[in-house]
Amino acid sequence: MKIFKARIYITLKPGVFDPQGKVILSSLETLGHKGVQRVSTGKYFEIELVAEDAEVAKREMEDICQGLLANPVIEKWNHRISEAPK
Amino acid sequence: MKIFKARIYITLKPGVFDPQGKVILSSLETLGHKGVQRVSTGKYFEIELVAEDAEVAKREMEDICQGLLANPVIEKWNHRISEAPK
Repeated sequence: MKIFKARIYITLKPGVFDPQGKVILSSLETLGHKGVQRVSTGKYFEIELVAEDAEVAKREMEDICQGLLANPVIEKWNHRISEAPK
Repeated sequence: MKIFKARIYITLKPGVFDPQGKVILSSLETLGHKGVQRVSTGKYFEIELVAEDAEVAKREMEDICQGLLANPVIEKWNHRISEAPK
């Protein structure tokens, strides 16, 4: 068994309204950051898990994203898995 | 002027208590994911901005993270900037 570290990025699917992003965009304009054109918000997780190999770890991450971390109706996810340094 | 896309990851500083991460960890155990050892939560943002060059875009992102998106007392941040495809 090896220890893996997964980085998970969850974002809203295209077309889903992102009110938090709109508020940040308007705040940035007020603060003088006129060059900012678009802000989209998401969630980020780091998970350490023990698994046989990277393939198994990847499948487990997919299950975890779909079943607990993300809302598959409005969100999409992406994960990167690397073996944790000893 | 060029369009840049920045990906921003904000996480809690080491040692800051992460109650949301603890709840997710215990939920994952209940759901049968016994191999998961640690969960830490964070925020993720994608920002599109217009800037002269990558160096200027990077400085602006640093300002935005420190001034608006993160709480510098308890959070640290990381950003990656790439030129947006035309």
